[in-house]
Amino acid sequence: MKETHNDHHEHHGHDHEHQHRSKIQFDRNGIPKVLSPKESVHSEDYPDDYSKAVNTYRKTFPNKQRVLAETPDPGVKEMMERMAYLNIDTAFDRFDAQQPQCIFGLGGTCCKNCNMGPCRITKKSPRGVCGADADLIVARNLLRSAAAGAAQHGMHAREVILMLKWAAQGKMDIAIDGEHKIRTMAKAFGIQTAHRQLKHITIDLADRLLKDLSQTEPDDYATISACAPKERQQIWKEMDILPISAYHEVFEAYHKSGCAIDSDWESIMRQFLRCGLVFTFSGVLGAAIATDALLGIGDRATAKTNIGALKEGYVNIAVHGHLPVLVREIVKTGYSEKYQKLAREKGAKGIQFYGICCSSLAAMYRYSGVIPLSNAISAELVLGTGALDLWVADVQEIYPAIMDVARCYQTTVVTTSDSNRLPGAEHIGYDHHHSNIDETGQIAERIVERAIESFEKRRHIPVFIPPYEIEAEVGFSVEYIQKIHGGLEKMAEALRSGEILGIVNLVGCNNPKVVYEKAIVDVAEVLLKHNVLIITNGCASFPLMKLGFCQTTELAYGRVGASLRAFLEPDNLPPVWHVGECIDNARSSAFFAGIAGEFDRAIHEMPYAFTSPEWSNEKGLDASLGFRLMGVNTYHCVEAPIHGSEKVIRFLKEDTRSTLGAVMVVDADPVALGEKMVADLQSKRKALGW
Amino acid sequence: MKETHNDHHEHHGHDHEHQHRSKIQFDRNGIPKVLSPKESVHSEDYPDDYSKAVNTYRKTFPNKQRVLAETPDPGVKEMMERMAYLNIDTAFDRFDAQQPQCIFGLGGTCCKNCNMGPCRITKKSPRGVCGADADLIVARNLLRSAAAGAAQHGMHAREVILMLKWAAQGKMDIAIDGEHKIRTMAKAFGIQTAHRQLKHITIDLADRLLKDLSQTEPDDYATISACAPKERQQIWKEMDILPISAYHEVFEAYHKSGCAIDSDWESIMRQFLRCGLVFTFSGVLGAAIATDALLGIGDRATAKTNIGALKEGYVNIAVHGHLPVLVREIVKTGYSEKYQKLAREKGAKGIQFYGICCSSLAAMYRYSGVIPLSNAISAELVLGTGALDLWVADVQEIYPAIMDVARCYQTTVVTTSDSNRLPGAEHIGYDHHHSNIDETGQIAERIVERAIESFEKRRHIPVFIPPYEIEAEVGFSVEYIQKIHGGLEKMAEALRSGEILGIVNLVGCNNPKVVYEKAIVDVAEVLLKHNVLIITNGCASFPLMKLGFCQTTELAYGRVGASLRAFLEPDNLPPVWHVGECIDNARSSAFFAGIAGEFDRAIHEMPYAFTSPEWSNEKGLDASLGFRLMGVNTYHCVEAPIHGSEKVIRFLKEDTRSTLGAVMVVDADPVALGEKMVADLQSKRKALGW
Repeated sequence: MKETHNDHHEHHGHDHEHQHRSKIQFDRNGIPKVLSPKESVHSEDYPDDYSKAVNTYRKTFPNKQRVLAETPDPGVKEMMERMAYLNIDTAFDRFDAQQPQCIFGLGGTCCKNCNMGPCRITKKSPRGVCGADADLIVARNLLRSAAAGAAQHGMHAREVILMLKWAAQGKMDIAIDGEHKIRTMAKAFGIQTAHRQLKHITIDLADRLLKDLSQTEPDDYATISACAPKERQQIWKEMDILPISAYHEVFEAYHKSGCAIDSDWESIMRQFLRCGLVFTFSGVLGAAIATDALLGIGDRATAKTNIGALKEGYVNIAVHGHLPVLVREIVKTGYSEKYQKLAREKGAKGIQFYGICCSSLAAMYRYSGVIPLSNAISAELVLGTGALDLWVADVQEIYPAIMDVARCYQTTVVTTSDSNRLPGAEHIGYDHHHSNIDETGQIAERIVERAIESFEKRRHIPVFIPPYEIEAEVGFSVEYIQKIHGGLEKMAEALRSGEILGIVNLVGCNNPKVVYEKAIVDVAEVLLKHNVLIITNGCASFPLMKLGFCQTTELAYGRVGASLRAFLEPDNLPPVWHVGECIDNARSSAFFAGIAGEFDRAIHEMPYAFTSPEWSNEKGLDASLGFRLMGVNTYHCVEAPIHGSEKVIRFLKEDTRSTLGAVMVVDADPVALGEKMVADLQSKRKALGW
Repeated sequence: MKETHNDHHEHHGHDHEHQHRSKIQFDRNGIPKVLSPKESVHSEDYPDDYSKAVNTYRKTFPNKQRVLAETPDPGVKEMMERMAYLNIDTAFDRFDAQQPQCIFGLGGTCCKNCNMGPCRITKKSPRGVCGADADLIVARNLLRSAAAGAAQHGMHAREVILMLKWAAQGKMDIAIDGEHKIRTMAKAFGIQTAHRQLKHITIDLADRLLKDLSQTEPDDYATISACAPKERQQIWKEMDILPISAYHEVFEAYHKSGCAIDSDWESIMRQFLRCGLVFTFSGVLGAAIATDALLGIGDRATAKTNIGALKEGYVNIAVHGHLPVLVREIVKTGYSEKYQKLAREKGAKGIQFYGICCSSLAAMYRYSGVIPLSNAISAELVLGTGALDLWVADVQEIYPAIMDVARCYQTTVVTTSDSNRLPGAEHIGYDHHHSNIDETGQIAERIVERAIESFEKRRHIPVFIPPYEIEAEVGFSVEYIQKIHGGLEKMAEALRSGEILGIVNLVGCNNPKVVYEKAIVDVAEVLLKHNVLIITNGCASFPLMKLGFCQTTELAYGRVGASLRAFLEPDNLPPVWHVGECIDNARSSAFFAGIAGEFDRAIHEMPYAFTSPEWSNEKGLDASLGFRLMGVNTYHCVEAPIHGSEKVIRFLKEDTRSTLGAVMVVDADPVALGEKMVADLQSKRKALGW
């Protein structure tokens, strides 16, 4: 009987609504959708239904064969084939080997938060040993992921803020390149700037950011009070989600989510929202402020990209990770005449830098000559070219699997942060206490020297470079647009008139649960066709750069609706604006806030959206949450592990509409997702009377 | 062939050693043992062998029927039977419903740290999607648990430290009862005490503790430099595990353990050790210092205990949790003449307080009249008596399941901390920002008033109280022994002479993976018979109190070897010294350090041990780690989720012998565990020439 009912349900898809129980429905891909915001009781059938839905969802995951057939970048395809030929594992092979993935893990209903467990929610066992039900377990797991993501971006922020402070104190002998940013932000934070030396202002600014990062006592969260829209601050206060500090909220998250501590899924979700705020204001904005203060904002530039840009005969160094300061010193050192000469003496044509993931993005628009090659998931493929002599890994998105490929090709891997060690790598960097920050220059030199030594030893290694190289326009920011347009009025007017239908921040990592880079490209194509302007950064920006979306050529403009093209082409602007590394979501937010400000509108009223079609890591959960907290809907092709809880699904996908003015939308089909986004942007316009 | 080999292996148990691969062997209960410290390579067979071992281990878990037959407290048995008769679920029912538990979860080889997963390690899939292997996954999961435990005790510490500071600042109108402790600790921390008002000294002390809790910049960790033995500080420095702050190390733990961040299991284990240090020095010692500073140390007292001490006809209030400050105010208010009178006017005989878990222990030896009833896991049984009018829940070890029982008996449940909400409970307490700390007195009054109201409404509720009531001697501390013996020389001499064979700290929560409270009692009986003195606190202390181990009667002395009895009886000392709540592990450490100091010996040389036979929560993982960090072996009847990694097993059970001077020992059989402990204490004595 139940079987029959479910079959019936699946055949009817969206149109059929359960009358006799929950208002959650699963679409043809097993993704939960909320049909009505009304409260409903827990159904006895739900545990069966959700596990069937997870099973359906799991069937949408592509295998390697399908990735090979459908992934859009031919360079990726050729390298995947070569790795298969050489019998070297990739993430796609390992993903296939993990199938079928655990229903409880995917559904969020597995609890490992104490050693009485693990517990799993089934019809037979609706509660864990402590009494936790599916709602509590799903909520706690989600909170723990968000808290971890906040810690991850938060550690990135801490590193850069401390280095800014140490540079100002003279403890670290590096340049401070962002004086304008420091003065602007100091004013916003109410720090006295008149008649004071830059270094003192800088130290005060850093201390303010550190206080928000770590204070224990309830007090003002300066980055929020100085930088968040007042409308939002009021909403967050009413929702009782204003955070104390980033360290504190992460600490509290792991407190409350422990066994038999907080038993109220709604209270857990409040902490989830607090983690989203500290992620946004300390992890992203704090990091972005300190980075721009230390390294400067950078300017628009043209970057070579994709795997074909690898140059044989050079001492080839890849920088991989997220921490930009040491990278700057390494690049400076490597491009110095002294080291270029040394490289030539050893038989190389010179030294060339490449970038993987965010390190490359932070570098590429600040200093020319760092070529972005790939996001994290295909780092293995880049190593598989055999073209790299040295690989500098700092933190985050550095798969342990790269070591196997590096070993095959004798690429020297160097770790630089104590937060990341790779077995088999050399560590030339900082320790846990940063006791050697005053040796930063020597560390950079030692790394470049090791690259040259590695070049000499590796001359016999075969190199295979697929011939795909392309240029991308990068380095966009509010400051750049203000420079060319004299302000944001022109953009605002184009948005109001409909020349620009809406603005979407398209970001996020990759996930083998969808065809690699295809979801990003498919979504981008739907948006551009409908005259939606795209802002991008981080991992998702790689396919857009590699496939010509970031150009001012016909390759790019050919994908764009007429009115958006008319806005872009005269000013030589590409249809996708590349704003940098993942923490440069702060730049996208600045566009969102700046243009809303032109109309004296709240962000949630504006035709904006955030999408991370292929997100996978814990930070990715927070990144979208951060935008929903600002009132911007977020759109994804992969589901968070929430299938098991009707209440958490409803919270994320419906309830926050009335509180935050934004919800999470998931569709495993990227074209359908893009179309939904366009429809929602049109609704926003309609509500504005545009 | 492999099957045959494994059968062979199992039949031979301890005596048979794998010659052809790993030095890890699984005993007859599936518990991994390290036979040799030598490094060995990963075996292809290991994934099969470990999952078989987990399966064997899982078979040792008792079902409810066995718990009912073997649990030692007759009060627990009667209440379990009554709950079964009334068809109310208990933790034991839910544990049975969760069987069989997931092999990967139990083995530590399930990774949910990103949304590419969940991944599981099997022979077919030896790595996760990112490339993480079993060692990395097991280590990361263990680190995350330890970090959560550090956050949990750390939040407890923060609350008490902030309240100490607010009391000194006059922001909170409560008494500071621990002047002596404040002055002593201030001197240890190098805070000026001469010619200063107590409140200023107190604020400085609180600030010092808060700095250790939260600093971002590498700097002195004052609680460690002031309070840890110099020998240990040197070892921790050499191992590069000195922490920066509690907040920081937890934050960093969730950074490093994220997907594709730290890929070196050894680096992960260093962070695990750092979490153990912040747990110990901020979570436990920081909390203990602040608690003693605010509430005083307390003195030896005689407490009534067990479920039979519940009194019909009174307004019965239970305090449950870990935060002692508001509890003190509630108890003071309830025992005031004003409220006793009000209760009598409403038809009650008066107001009586009871305690569950640590709240009761902190209270019972500071103010008479708080009757400790049970640890966390049987809180449901206590509620099932129907005798409680109001239940005050602050944080930790408060199972969500209590609400179902409270609803049956119309017991009003009140939550007081924002860190813990219980659906269906009333919240009369603090908010996330402690904005209402100045209303603490009113909060306490409101709670007592609600209890009286609840009493009036509940007069028709049937009450069932099993007749088991007993007295226990509690409130021991170094200070108490110094008072009666004039110092620690007498204890030290008894230890050297062998009158006391060794000293064991017996603590820890409970876990349905072993027969409830039986492992604790069995271990205690073996130890006492061999003249081992026991110090106890927290959840494990309940069966020892309830079953007469904390008395100076024949019931207690009858279990004790002749020489220990001869040491105890003349001074009217019980064989088990109850030192308080879980953070009072600090008191046990003070005994350990103090007596070692009498001989000018390092702690790791001394005949000491730590045992938490039935531990289950994340804090429990850190508590034992904290003692190993001090050089004290730890002994357990339940295994951590480490079966899946030979390297992590070897790290915990063998490698730290040469670095920390201490290892983890696990045996599912409590008698065998106790005997192993005795043998190890004898070895320590032998090495000392005692």
